[in-house]
Amino acid sequence: MSGNSFGTLYCVSSFGESHGPAYGGVVDGCPPGLELSAEDIQRELDKRKPGSSRHVTQRRETDAVEILSGVFEGRTTGTAIGFLVRNEDQRSKDYAAIAQKFRPGHADYTYFQKYGVRDTRGGGRASARETLVRVAAGAIAKKYLREKYGVVVRGYLAQVGPHKIAFDSWEAVEANPFFAPNAASVPQLENFMDALRESGDSCGARVNVVASGVPVGWGEPVYGRLDADIAAAMMGINAVKGVEIGAGFAAVTQKGSEHGDEMSPQGFLSNNNGGVLGGISTGQDITVSIALKPTSSIRLPRRTIDTRGQATTIQTTGRHDPCVGIRATPIAEAMLACVLMDHALRHRAQCADVTPPLALG
Amino acid sequence: MSGNSFGTLYCVSSFGESHGPAYGGVVDGCPPGLELSAEDIQRELDKRKPGSSRHVTQRRETDAVEILSGVFEGRTTGTAIGFLVRNEDQRSKDYAAIAQKFRPGHADYTYFQKYGVRDTRGGGRASARETLVRVAAGAIAKKYLREKYGVVVRGYLAQVGPHKIAFDSWEAVEANPFFAPNAASVPQLENFMDALRESGDSCGARVNVVASGVPVGWGEPVYGRLDADIAAAMMGINAVKGVEIGAGFAAVTQKGSEHGDEMSPQGFLSNNNGGVLGGISTGQDITVSIALKPTSSIRLPRRTIDTRGQATTIQTTGRHDPCVGIRATPIAEAMLACVLMDHALRHRAQCADVTPPLALG
Amino acid sequence: MSGNSFGTLYCVSSFGESHGPAYGGVVDGCPPGLELSAEDIQRELDKRKPGSSRHVTQRRETDAVEILSGVFEGRTTGTAIGFLVRNEDQRSKDYAAIAQKFRPGHADYTYFQKYGVRDTRGGGRASARETLVRVAAGAIAKKYLREKYGVVVRGYLAQVGPHKIAFDSWEAVEANPFFAPNAASVPQLENFMDALRESGDSCGARVNVVASGVPVGWGEPVYGRLDADIAAAMMGINAVKGVEIGAGFAAVTQKGSEHGDEMSPQGFLSNNNGGVLGGISTGQDITVSIALKPTSSIRLPRRTIDTRGQATTIQTTGRHDPCVGIRATPIAEAMLACVLMDHALRHRAQCADVTPPLALG
Amino acid sequence: MSGNSFGTLYCVSSFGESHGPAYGGVVDGCPPGLELSAEDIQRELDKRKPGSSRHVTQRRETDAVEILSGVFEGRTTGTAIGFLVRNEDQRSKDYAAIAQKFRPGHADYTYFQKYGVRDTRGGGRASARETLVRVAAGAIAKKYLREKYGVVVRGYLAQVGPHKIAFDSWEAVEANPFFAPNAASVPQLENFMDALRESGDSCGARVNVVASGVPVGWGEPVYGRLDADIAAAMMGINAVKGVEIGAGFAAVTQKGSEHGDEMSPQGFLSNNNGGVLGGISTGQDITVSIALKPTSSIRLPRRTIDTRGQATTIQTTGRHDPCVGIRATPIAEAMLACVLMDHALRHRAQCADVTPPLALG
Repeated sequence: MSGNSFGTLYCVSSFGESHGPAYGGVVDGCPPGLELSAEDIQRELDKRKPGSSRHVTQRRETDAVEILSGVFEGRTTGTAIGFLVRNEDQRSKDYAAIAQKFRPGHADYTYFQKYGVRDTRGGGRASARETLVRVAAGAIAKKYLREKYGVVVRGYLAQVGPHKIAFDSWEAVEANPFFAPNAASVPQLENFMDALRESGDSCGARVNVVASGVPVGWGEPVYGRLDADIAAAMMGINAVKGVEIGAGFAAVTQKGSEHGDEMSPQGFLSNNNGGVLGGISTGQDITVSIALKPTSSIRLPRRTIDTRGQATTIQTTGRHDPCVGIRATPIAEAMLACVLMDHALRHRAQCADVTPPLALG
Repeated sequence: MSGNSFGTLYCVSSFGESHGPAYGGVVDGCPPGLELSAEDIQRELDKRKPGSSRHVTQRRETDAVEILSGVFEGRTTGTAIGFLVRNEDQRSKDYAAIAQKFRPGHADYTYFQKYGVRDTRGGGRASARETLVRVAAGAIAKKYLREKYGVVVRGYLAQVGPHKIAFDSWEAVEANPFFAPNAASVPQLENFMDALRESGDSCGARVNVVASGVPVGWGEPVYGRLDADIAAAMMGINAVKGVEIGAGFAAVTQKGSEHGDEMSPQGFLSNNNGGVLGGISTGQDITVSIALKPTSSIRLPRRTIDTRGQATTIQTTGRHDPCVGIRATPIAEAMLACVLMDHALRHRAQCADVTPPLALG
Repeated sequence: MSGNSFGTLYCVSSFGESHGPAYGGVVDGCPPGLELSAEDIQRELDKRKPGSSRHVTQRRETDAVEILSGVFEGRTTGTAIGFLVRNEDQRSKDYAAIAQKFRPGHADYTYFQKYGVRDTRGGGRASARETLVRVAAGAIAKKYLREKYGVVVRGYLAQVGPHKIAFDSWEAVEANPFFAPNAASVPQLENFMDALRESGDSCGARVNVVASGVPVGWGEPVYGRLDADIAAAMMGINAVKGVEIGAGFAAVTQKGSEHGDEMSPQGFLSNNNGGVLGGISTGQDITVSIALKPTSSIRLPRRTIDTRGQATTIQTTGRHDPCVGIRATPIAEAMLACVLMDHALRHRAQCADVTPPLALG
Repeated sequence: MSGNSFGTLYCVSSFGESHGPAYGGVVDGCPPGLELSAEDIQRELDKRKPGSSRHVTQRRETDAVEILSGVFEGRTTGTAIGFLVRNEDQRSKDYAAIAQKFRPGHADYTYFQKYGVRDTRGGGRASARETLVRVAAGAIAKKYLREKYGVVVRGYLAQVGPHKIAFDSWEAVEANPFFAPNAASVPQLENFMDALRESGDSCGARVNVVASGVPVGWGEPVYGRLDADIAAAMMGINAVKGVEIGAGFAAVTQKGSEHGDEMSPQGFLSNNNGGVLGGISTGQDITVSIALKPTSSIRLPRRTIDTRGQATTIQTTGRHDPCVGIRATPIAEAMLACVLMDHALRHRAQCADVTPPLALG
């Protein structure tokens, strides 16, 4: 256990590197009897696939998933679901010029110091390409959560660099390559991204994710809190530097009389808490917001050192996303779905004997 | 495992309720040979103790810790460290008037729905009094980290409601009951808190925590990232709604050429990443910032429901902190120390054979 | 996590040493709503208590348990159950003569080499007195399993040294201090034990444990097998050197046509498999047998070394069980109950949606 | 986590079914810098390969392993090692006649009841073919243990049905298809197996495994004991019904003066404890013995029921090992190696600061 598994009861083990032969994973703990096909997973993988517009990396990958176990006659069997995605477009030579240099803001330095190994082929295990494993695991979780509990997990791009994107509709999200929830914002985003790409620089972003239909009672108190596990899942996505639940940092300037969500027999009257109180779901929407830093691989020259510790400069010319936040929406959705799935199982393990005493609304 | 344990190799199991006989815990995984006395723990517990100023809850507890095992002749033995803190000032009658009502923003509603049980004595397991267990475990971690690795974990109050507190010095932090890093800010804070208390309302806060001296290489890639585990630890503190590492949400509007920390043979030239890249420590300061929501138990009347689902109003008159953020500093320090301790052990488990190839600075 | 916790979802964390102030534990994961009192735990603790007959250690301990959390108004709340048992009769001076010597067959040597610490007060953490924590946790598990599923966990002493004890009835077990399932065997056992005690030597034993009423389907395939977890739990009891499930080692000389349990619409026609097939419970009795080695602390002189590595001899004159197997029955029952409880929760976490297709018998 | 992962720090996640497209696994936690090639794994896989003699299943599989990640330029990188073995000779039609019947002694009944799913293609996930994943993971562990610590893990067939095989030499083990440690025993074994195969029946076996060179101090006390984890690993191998460490069940009739291994400045004078005291390695050979039941799939007619619960008879004509014990030796070695590897890492996580005070011998 050195950072390649995720989840307690719905557990994903992941492997693969950006310039190795394949990525893949093992999903352990999925309940039996769920209808599942490769297409169910492929649909989600296609959302985060590279090369889907000019605003993301131009690496060409079909990201075709093969299910290797755990499904028989179209349904999950309750045993391990193994799956595989072959890499097709590894251009390691892109990295020859920077093979012995560290990219500012990149994990290549810390990997080198931790493991004593320099993978000269590119991002290696640190590549965000690994997130396809999460999206695959999340696709299964999403399907189970929707069919069994009516839970829907959705996200959108809320900000790119300085441009905040007002939420208009969920339909808008699926109609543009940015996952922007507002069709009117798209031309501006395109212009901004085109200019950014041309400048050789990169930018940060904010992504929001919402889970609707989560029953009251999921999550554990004290340490295994639903919000704590969500925070870990989100901060564990490449490039994420901040996580908020509900009011988030706005809570700092709120008064208790403003923040504390009042209740009526019909339910809560507001949702500052983002659907979690005391680590346990309230039955409201779970609302999460994350900050993604700018891509570290940029074309502009930067001061750095090489693997012998000598001062040098670096320019990265490989195929990289100028804003990793653009492709982050399906990844954040997947992570939220995995956490909820895990807690659905953890909750019924301990509390299957309990019927929630109150039915609001 | 239902939320009462924390950590992988340095593992804390906690028990206790605000109006039960005692709190306590078991620390498993502490290396043998560490000098340790009850005083080492007591010193940290005293920092978060209630009743230390008029600005926090007036509950009177000595919070005296008894070590029950795992220490022999003043040194840890490598076996489980059990410890106990008796409750002394439980005034459950304070809760008679609200025993059947839910406090807006409080966990009493979610606990009731999850477990089907109503603990009418007060906050029960959801009380922030549980954090004394974390502080005790953190005290041991802090001591080991400092003696073995020279790591120092410190925090301070960075904002109370609308009042931002500029960092002046670490010495200032210890000289006032707010953990404010700036002596000049104290009179203003006192006035603000006095007015707040009188108003019957509560407010939010921001706390910053910094770990200095952390070696490069701690943390796991992909899922068990150091920053992900820190995020979980912080979001798992009562009332926390947001977590940032390094630049945090400011990264959204940064360019890559600004955010990515350049390097020289002397080390990093900035610290936007907050000491973590790719989930692994860089050797720089680890910088964390958290948002704490306002206390949910306030004297002002609020709309709510009772345990039969009927509409009612509630006013909470027990002894509560008007700003939980004030006592949060030692708790956040303890959580960061526990995570670092855990990763120190996890790192050497896998990478004891590796010497980091580069020594910067 | 260094060996002081046990279980995945029904998880026990334990602390305490034989000559420290107290033992105790934290039970995490118990479902809410179970009626539970200190008496429920005390009843089981009294079964393994020292000093209950002249055939076991004469250490005088009331082993009175105090529940510190997790129970409100007589029912479990679903949060951590903390409990404490104070030591009363520590006579560390018994150990002065052997404080710097290793007892052949005892863990004092391996603890010293692993941790670099010599606990001169006696068995320390390695003492079988720790098993009281397991018995307490097992008492809670037993109660839940019986009330929720009708599962009954019972054990008996099957052999002491050369004396095999034929099973007569469960009633017999409770009517003698040996947990012998046959009243007629008791005089012989008493004579044997009296002679053994006088000789200054010790002997081994075999204990059988049976769980009846376990539903079909508990356990995981491949690695988290029910039988694998039972084997670990049993081999983890002090002094155990062998574990069998069902036919056990007799299976070596069986043919497939003899061993494979045939089936009818009324159920299985035999139980060579001991209630587990493929790691999953069959619905039959789960039958387990364990070998316990002779007590290592004996009065006879033995060759050994001291803590400086010098040759010496040792005679142990403290108060020790001449046959640890005699008090092992309630411990083995407790461990089996804890494993079953854990798997009951694990099973319903994943398979709550499944109704077993067949109802035999 | 539903039974498809194994290990705490050296963790193997496994997937695959006997009649699906492939088996594979993810090894997490392997230290970086270990020289590793597919051949290192293949060599061990070839030992347990089907079809290697007429005495085992005639299924034809090359069991060729592909490493998909975690190795760069011939050395482990410290990240997840993914590997894949394609199935080549699935003859699911062998199972048509018994698709709706349960094999006495087989897991098909318990899987059906637990998951509500009938995999009609054969053994499915319960097939012992899964053990190739363990052998692959064990191959990596063996290599690290040997190179880093000088630990050698070896096993042999000690008994087949009624025939005990006296240990002669380790060289003999590798010179016959039975892993028999005695060349003289081979003709008798061949005759016995030929007759058994002809009879249509199957038989049990005993396998012994020994780890030499294990340093003193590995293992945890109380619950995570080295012997407990070995017991779980062994009982978790398909068909195992009993596990012994050291004297095992012979300890029942031993006196303390006989069992307790005396010590001298040169080390222990005997090894009744099998290299483990108090759950911690003594530095002696770790000796383990396991009982394997007879194969459940036999050609002789047996009484059983079908998936509707109706009485019927069954004869299994697929290609099965008449004695699963014959191919169990490399599997048991692999499991022991994985447990030792896990504990090597766990030990240095907690006790890296300790030098064992004594060096015996």
